[in-house]
Amino acid sequence: MRNLLDIMDLSTDELDSLIKTALDIKDHPDKYADACKRKKLATLFFEPSTRTRLSFEAAMYELGGNVIGFSESSSSSAAKGESVADTVKVVSNYADIIAMRHPKDGAALVAVRNANVPVINAGDGGHHHPTQTLADLLTIYREKGGFSGLTIGLCGDLKYGRTVHSLVYAMSRYEGVSFVFISPEELRFPRYIIDDVLEKNGIPYSETSDLEEAIPKLDILYMTRIQRERFLDMNEYERLKDSYILTPEKLVSAKKDMAILHPLPRVNEISVAVDRDPRAKYFEQTLNGKYMRMALILKLLGLDGKPSDEAGDTVRDVIYDRFKCPNHRCITTTEQELRQEFYSVDEEKGIYRCVYCDTEIRK
Amino acid sequence: MRNLLDIMDLSTDELDSLIKTALDIKDHPDKYADACKRKKLATLFFEPSTRTRLSFEAAMYELGGNVIGFSESSSSSAAKGESVADTVKVVSNYADIIAMRHPKDGAALVAVRNANVPVINAGDGGHHHPTQTLADLLTIYREKGGFSGLTIGLCGDLKYGRTVHSLVYAMSRYEGVSFVFISPEELRFPRYIIDDVLEKNGIPYSETSDLEEAIPKLDILYMTRIQRERFLDMNEYERLKDSYILTPEKLVSAKKDMAILHPLPRVNEISVAVDRDPRAKYFEQTLNGKYMRMALILKLLGLDGKPSDEAGDTVRDVIYDRFKCPNHRCITTTEQELRQEFYSVDEEKGIYRCVYCDTEIRK
Amino acid sequence: MRNLLDIMDLSTDELDSLIKTALDIKDHPDKYADACKRKKLATLFFEPSTRTRLSFEAAMYELGGNVIGFSESSSSSAAKGESVADTVKVVSNYADIIAMRHPKDGAALVAVRNANVPVINAGDGGHHHPTQTLADLLTIYREKGGFSGLTIGLCGDLKYGRTVHSLVYAMSRYEGVSFVFISPEELRFPRYIIDDVLEKNGIPYSETSDLEEAIPKLDILYMTRIQRERFLDMNEYERLKDSYILTPEKLVSAKKDMAILHPLPRVNEISVAVDRDPRAKYFEQTLNGKYMRMALILKLLGLDGKPSDEAGDTVRDVIYDRFKCPNHRCITTTEQELRQEFYSVDEEKGIYRCVYCDTEIRK
Repeated sequence: MRNLLDIMDLSTDELDSLIKTALDIKDHPDKYADACKRKKLATLFFEPSTRTRLSFEAAMYELGGNVIGFSESSSSSAAKGESVADTVKVVSNYADIIAMRHPKDGAALVAVRNANVPVINAGDGGHHHPTQTLADLLTIYREKGGFSGLTIGLCGDLKYGRTVHSLVYAMSRYEGVSFVFISPEELRFPRYIIDDVLEKNGIPYSETSDLEEAIPKLDILYMTRIQRERFLDMNEYERLKDSYILTPEKLVSAKKDMAILHPLPRVNEISVAVDRDPRAKYFEQTLNGKYMRMALILKLLGLDGKPSDEAGDTVRDVIYDRFKCPNHRCITTTEQELRQEFYSVDEEKGIYRCVYCDTEIRK
Repeated sequence: MRNLLDIMDLSTDELDSLIKTALDIKDHPDKYADACKRKKLATLFFEPSTRTRLSFEAAMYELGGNVIGFSESSSSSAAKGESVADTVKVVSNYADIIAMRHPKDGAALVAVRNANVPVINAGDGGHHHPTQTLADLLTIYREKGGFSGLTIGLCGDLKYGRTVHSLVYAMSRYEGVSFVFISPEELRFPRYIIDDVLEKNGIPYSETSDLEEAIPKLDILYMTRIQRERFLDMNEYERLKDSYILTPEKLVSAKKDMAILHPLPRVNEISVAVDRDPRAKYFEQTLNGKYMRMALILKLLGLDGKPSDEAGDTVRDVIYDRFKCPNHRCITTTEQELRQEFYSVDEEKGIYRCVYCDTEIRK
Repeated sequence: MRNLLDIMDLSTDELDSLIKTALDIKDHPDKYADACKRKKLATLFFEPSTRTRLSFEAAMYELGGNVIGFSESSSSSAAKGESVADTVKVVSNYADIIAMRHPKDGAALVAVRNANVPVINAGDGGHHHPTQTLADLLTIYREKGGFSGLTIGLCGDLKYGRTVHSLVYAMSRYEGVSFVFISPEELRFPRYIIDDVLEKNGIPYSETSDLEEAIPKLDILYMTRIQRERFLDMNEYERLKDSYILTPEKLVSAKKDMAILHPLPRVNEISVAVDRDPRAKYFEQTLNGKYMRMALILKLLGLDGKPSDEAGDTVRDVIYDRFKCPNHRCITTTEQELRQEFYSVDEEKGIYRCVYCDTEIRK
């Protein structure tokens, strides 16, 4: 593997290896202090995401490397109409590895296909954000000593929250895991993921709109923000935004060793008073994210002492330019001279997905 | 001391020690070139201030460290509604020391209370900006060989100029110092500082609106900018802004060794022609600021070879949630779940001040 | 030479020496990995230019130095009305060398006159952008083994494209060079440069509006973008912007070893399909730019092992404050207390040029 687009690109073995490296970095930082000497990370943030950017930058500096980049597209050539492809081709001449954040779904694949250096997807629109999931996984691992047999509650905006989706995909690979989805009706966990992953593999799950009722059985409570930008109707947003606020009172009935996670930034979905609860792990989660990013950078640069896995892109039969992606946030709507590409999910039923953003169409 | 919020947090001994370190850095930069190896400074600038930010960054690099951060809040998570508290909690996982600039009065105290690493206040609204005062003090020290017995003229916007206020507090601790306040009527030096500091300690001062008349007796002339953003009435600004422009002509009657200081950026309050006068020290002041920031970083990281002073926050009886801070620029107006805190200045007279921004109320 | 304002400040010997250093850096990067240890480059970008900025930053890091700076003026003190002169005076206390980009013509000369450290002009408005030309020249050198005897086609916006103008000046110094200017009528190569450089020195050139007809005879095809911001009439822009798009079809008749250059960013003036053609050298051009910037930084810091050439500014008789520069993009229109300066081109005919932006006036 040379790039990280989607958490599911990593096998469980690769994930185990990243976790092992991350824990070793945590315990023996000195060993890694010069690992990336004379290497440069480019942080190409076409939209701002301070936390993620600073985490990558701290990671690279702690490995002895340097960082170049930009933090929003108004200060980038993108404002002059440059394509993602050209940007990464040029930056490949300046840096040894790229971490890219972009507002369009599928932009990361364009980067991977054009860069001459490894690319890490630091978030492509509402599509993937695998390094957040790496942070989540290390936090679960450190708090629970492993992944098997855990009951994981996911609360808040489960419809649009890409971190929640990725976590379900990633955790579904472990034995004895079950899920509790806690959300308002309007923001329920997507049916297609339930069908694809949980129903198909017989993984237990339940759905509820009642946070307090769900809490006692959970080993992990993963809170998410109800993002204003996801709502078309602001009244709807105002009505829902306070529905799922975690407070010390609601935690009374929780297990003593339940771990509370949150991808941050938080607005008010977790009361500040909860920060003092020893079960609150969301700030430690950001520390774990830094360690996992360090492990990932080492792996992608071939500096982790492991043989490189040459799997690369999934090989799939692709249909060019027959369909047009209906997702108006897809990178194919803006990137120059990009062909429409779809892969078949179920040829008989006529179900296809966009290679870039995975949006499904039925013909 | 682990943080620097206000110049008055430093004892005169601590200040002497910082000056000594700064001079040693200036004379022997090689000794310090690796002092902060593998340390990271986070520059969290919620509003732009290029000069201050670059000075901190240069300081950290000259100590062999690295820098992460942001230069304005549009590229930070603050734009998504994140609190100062959460930002510094997260950044504490990425950096060893934080320099924060924020537009709200009192924001620096929120940072100090939530960070797990030392915090330097790089300006919190109109409240404090102690590293500017450190630059001013080293400049005075280097030009005059000490602080005692000096006559210090302060000219321009003395009402809102926080650097001027801090300098008066800081210089008032030395023997034989006197002040001349030179300003238009509308922008006079605040009465409460005169009462609190000068009258109480019998320190001589005079007030005038005539710059030329005041100049001959001064050892130091500290010029300040009349900031457009401080005025509600733009006509008033236009009328006043040129009133106190320093020119070569006005300097004819000044002492041969008077030192001219200015916190910069300058607009036109000092004519460019003055730059060639050997008494102009405002560019050297920025160099001195870099050395003092280097000394401060070393001190706060415990790398100056001095025993750490554990004084910490002033212990004060605090009244919670009884009063509400009337200052609309106070951090308590925006930060989530922040309690109102006041300390008593004069219980009998019912005078209290906001713990965050020091705004006074009378009940 | 201590600064680089204009490509023509470099003698052909100096240029040869830069190329030699750049090639040595390319072949032996390890030799240079600590060359700028403990040095700092300031990248002062008063307007965004990601590619140029990242190239400078990568260059400095590969030399073992550090970088401070800003990427647009909204995060700089310039937004508070600070002059270029003051900014560079202050930054001279923070950095060892400055690379400055500014939207005003002539801003770079203001920087050179006020900085205490070497200044590299990273683009001053539509005036000069010498490090782009360095990238162009190294690309031509590497592709062709030298500069003599080449036929160079320049295509697109030849009227406003400063990189095209500089390349013509620079290449005109070599034996046997000829030029083909390919552009719409409205954007023809400026007559005054043809007169000044080509006619005067008997250098062959031709003009055409037909790209396909011109291609077969070229050794170098230098494409440029037709910039939207140069047009007052948007209809005119829309009509012309697609006129000179390079496609694989148009390349069929080109020489097998013709090199295609472009200063980037590209919008659509070169079809993405051309990228796969081995004659496409525009991405390698950015790599060459990095090497030339490394060589230049070494030279200006006196670290290239060559004796310093003390030529400095051209000595010219200057007329102060008699004329006013009519160029509304000239730095003299905004910089505080800057005198108008003109030099005589032809006293008899009454032709003068602005010292800052070279705009010609006739009296």
